[in-house]
Amino acid sequence: MASTATGARDWARRRTAKRERLEAVRPYVSGRVLDAGRIGGALQALLRPGDRVAMEGDNQKQADFLAEALAGCDPDVVHDLHLLISSISLPEHLDVFERGVARRLDFAYAGPQSVRMAQLLADGKVEVGAIHTYVELYARMFVDLTPNIALLCAEQADHDGNLFTGPGTEDTPTIAEAVAFSGGVIVVQVNELVDKVPRVDIPGDWVDLIVESPRPFALEPLFTRDPRHIGQVEILMAMMALRGIYERHGVVTLNHGIGYDTAAIELLLPTYGEELGLRGKICRHWTLNPHPTLIPAIESGWVDSVHCFGGEPGMERYVAARPDVFFTGHDGSLRSNRVLCQLAGQYAVDLFIGSSLQIDADANSSTVTEGRLTGFGGAPNMGHDARGRRHPSAAWLNLLTGQAPAVRGRKLVVQITQTFRSGGTPAFVESLDAVQVGEEAGMPVPPIMIYGEDVTHVVTEEGVAYLYKAEGPAERREAVAAVAGATPVGRRADERRVAALRRDGLVALPEDLKVDVRKARRSLLAARSIEDLVAWSGGLYDPPARFRTW
Amino acid sequence: MASTATGARDWARRRTAKRERLEAVRPYVSGRVLDAGRIGGALQALLRPGDRVAMEGDNQKQADFLAEALAGCDPDVVHDLHLLISSISLPEHLDVFERGVARRLDFAYAGPQSVRMAQLLADGKVEVGAIHTYVELYARMFVDLTPNIALLCAEQADHDGNLFTGPGTEDTPTIAEAVAFSGGVIVVQVNELVDKVPRVDIPGDWVDLIVESPRPFALEPLFTRDPRHIGQVEILMAMMALRGIYERHGVVTLNHGIGYDTAAIELLLPTYGEELGLRGKICRHWTLNPHPTLIPAIESGWVDSVHCFGGEPGMERYVAARPDVFFTGHDGSLRSNRVLCQLAGQYAVDLFIGSSLQIDADANSSTVTEGRLTGFGGAPNMGHDARGRRHPSAAWLNLLTGQAPAVRGRKLVVQITQTFRSGGTPAFVESLDAVQVGEEAGMPVPPIMIYGEDVTHVVTEEGVAYLYKAEGPAERREAVAAVAGATPVGRRADERRVAALRRDGLVALPEDLKVDVRKARRSLLAARSIEDLVAWSGGLYDPPARFRTW
Repeated sequence: MASTATGARDWARRRTAKRERLEAVRPYVSGRVLDAGRIGGALQALLRPGDRVAMEGDNQKQADFLAEALAGCDPDVVHDLHLLISSISLPEHLDVFERGVARRLDFAYAGPQSVRMAQLLADGKVEVGAIHTYVELYARMFVDLTPNIALLCAEQADHDGNLFTGPGTEDTPTIAEAVAFSGGVIVVQVNELVDKVPRVDIPGDWVDLIVESPRPFALEPLFTRDPRHIGQVEILMAMMALRGIYERHGVVTLNHGIGYDTAAIELLLPTYGEELGLRGKICRHWTLNPHPTLIPAIESGWVDSVHCFGGEPGMERYVAARPDVFFTGHDGSLRSNRVLCQLAGQYAVDLFIGSSLQIDADANSSTVTEGRLTGFGGAPNMGHDARGRRHPSAAWLNLLTGQAPAVRGRKLVVQITQTFRSGGTPAFVESLDAVQVGEEAGMPVPPIMIYGEDVTHVVTEEGVAYLYKAEGPAERREAVAAVAGATPVGRRADERRVAALRRDGLVALPEDLKVDVRKARRSLLAARSIEDLVAWSGGLYDPPARFRTW
Repeated sequence: MASTATGARDWARRRTAKRERLEAVRPYVSGRVLDAGRIGGALQALLRPGDRVAMEGDNQKQADFLAEALAGCDPDVVHDLHLLISSISLPEHLDVFERGVARRLDFAYAGPQSVRMAQLLADGKVEVGAIHTYVELYARMFVDLTPNIALLCAEQADHDGNLFTGPGTEDTPTIAEAVAFSGGVIVVQVNELVDKVPRVDIPGDWVDLIVESPRPFALEPLFTRDPRHIGQVEILMAMMALRGIYERHGVVTLNHGIGYDTAAIELLLPTYGEELGLRGKICRHWTLNPHPTLIPAIESGWVDSVHCFGGEPGMERYVAARPDVFFTGHDGSLRSNRVLCQLAGQYAVDLFIGSSLQIDADANSSTVTEGRLTGFGGAPNMGHDARGRRHPSAAWLNLLTGQAPAVRGRKLVVQITQTFRSGGTPAFVESLDAVQVGEEAGMPVPPIMIYGEDVTHVVTEEGVAYLYKAEGPAERREAVAAVAGATPVGRRADERRVAALRRDGLVALPEDLKVDVRKARRSLLAARSIEDLVAWSGGLYDPPARFRTW
């Protein structure tokens, strides 16, 4: 049994490789600091063909300087890289494939670059491992996709490598942990090298190399919705959601997806919600990026706490001035963390509500449309019933499910959408575009964002469908059809069955919920413009230029 | 709309309270270091009645010095605390309730103290908020159970508060993050104050107060199983699991629960697994505490990587010598992390297998027996089908499920148990003890550990039941009964139906799997004792005294 045969095995190959890489990059380094002017040469010295490279690439912030440098590498020296990246957002993320620097790709989301990626895929320039949700991709970094190199970004570093991420901490600590403790090399672009960082988000002794980027890293305001674009239909749906779901089930802890539909709910809390006497009873604890449209509810005393996946440009000063509500450091600024916020959203929050672009007759939904494979992002992790959850709460117990002894509560997973999208495209469809897009991309199973089985409620301008009450798939389809309006799916609804479903509580129309349709006017919104949000914030909210119309 | 009415609101109450607490504790502090001899007075100065206190309290390590100090507080000064603690392991954890220092409790596991807790509950001395899984409790710290104070432990701190947790990092970074960024106060007991920590697990600027404990913190070797106690039946079951599940479905990424059944599988890899030619094909990436019984498989080249929830006493030197396999820091020692390992286990791993104490006819299972409410720990988070997962893998796709378009793969959730436990107690029962225990404790739903619906396979000495193939609950019950032997559940099995289930692939007996029962002997174990494990490790494994018999 003695292990003599394997005794000679080298168990520290990754550590040795790291030492060699750091030795090779030495001509480009002073202390831990890389020469920004020679970043290309430094990366070429650091990288080996076939390396697994984790690039940030988050939902919002981008290590764009390092991406550019990687794309500029000589493919004779650096090739066949395996890129791990949450969000393919910049042209450089695909240039690395076009130029032959990288070959293999595992990712989570490819919004702006999805058309070009389809082309690269067709041309055989990129091999896709899999499309993940954000947290799945990070999870695999601790299992079978451990990176050799991480290319990260932060606001500031000191000369010991201590990092200050600023409010958009997002995914940096998680990726850094996977790489720092598996013998990988961490390279970080920072906006500024300082003598002392205002707070330490990632300890310096996890970090190998720093480079001061000539410009601040790219950051997208993905979670800003201008209230100007919220119309009566969104307001009506928001009223129904508040009465028919939030009030009825007593939803205290929650997560909102992004979109005008959920922004309308946020903006009705201080008006319609107040009228209903719901302050302090619902919507107290949130897992949510710092949505500007939540400002009026916070200012009106509705919100006890918000834990954030990431930050939001323009919200920095406001968040810093509300430390009892947001998670902030001793420096005063937000600390976000996608993995922990996802954990909170999955295991400690009773409701997820999100807008969807397409819903089928079984309530399966997807944001993949028009032949573009955008990927998953984070919604599937919020929009499912977490079967590993065991602690009860009032809202969760309100949806009791299962056969004894396996009875349990259930997470509220709500889809909210108008029956027709702008341009008259039906939101309720016979077959999700995602099915065909998945087939064309050779995916083994269709890229469904949220499974119908997991959806508990559907809200449209027609009413609310309480799918969790349906006995079996046939009744679920009837309830979906009942609120699907004049779409192909909705036209299947049988009037007598709809009446029966209303009687049995599976479907509620506005009048069933005592929602006065005439009240659904823009005057009911606590803020009707970005300027209003700035005013609510007492001038603390600084909207990005593109949202300023004054 | 202007927010003048709320303009006067104080948005930094938590920050102010923190400043006041730190001011109050100043007489006990030099720099960040608390006087260990006056820790009781310091805690009394720091705490306020009604505070939410997060105490570590993990699965393995315990902030025992701080727990003792808290239990010794004067209940006239400190009372009605709300204790958040993963694992109630020490008498002091309940002394705080008996003495009236604390009143409310949210927890995850209460193994050794469960009987006394039931008594305190009956006496009205403790109010239980809820029983959680570990990650649920941490998740709530970011939502509706944000602590005011954290009482943590680490191996070393420097005078700036930088913490070195040692190999058992476990939950400390997660709790610290929840408290450091919500205006709470972090107190850490350390084994040693040093000038420079060997690595930084938690940045000093998150940490408020340090106290050098007069003795090292308590740490339990929960994951050590002596191969001496593995008998022929466990070996037979392990052979069937390897052939009928691991080989059949191609399980590359996995998590093992703790117990002799799964230890047997680990010890068969270098022998039986090798004979089957499976090395490199299965069991390459693990999420697992450093089980000593995995040493032979690691030494035989089976294991590419292990990411750990926590550490294991005695495994320190071995782990440090295998950095290509384990996640270790630049100091050489293990970095574990329960939340990230749970994330990995949930979203990046294809199989969970665990032993259960009781399984009912529907395959619901529980480790709650004999009237004791032990809680949930971590098994439910591993032992369920993660419905938020979207990326495919071969093993996951092998269990394709659902109706088009909502077809998807599925996580393998395996229950392994003998039909009778020691003492002749049946493992398969008509009704789980958990049902009655839950009722007596006033729980709103029964404390089921793993739901039958989520279980894909059951392994007993009789054979393997492929529950995922069952069409409906009735067939699932037949498949469970077919492998439940002479238990009340097993006696229901109908011989002709069993033959049909075997033919249809829902049940496999040893001969169906080509498992030679005569080979199920202890000589097939790669190690038959703790001494053998030490030998396999080349002397690097240092078993705790209680496991040394030589």
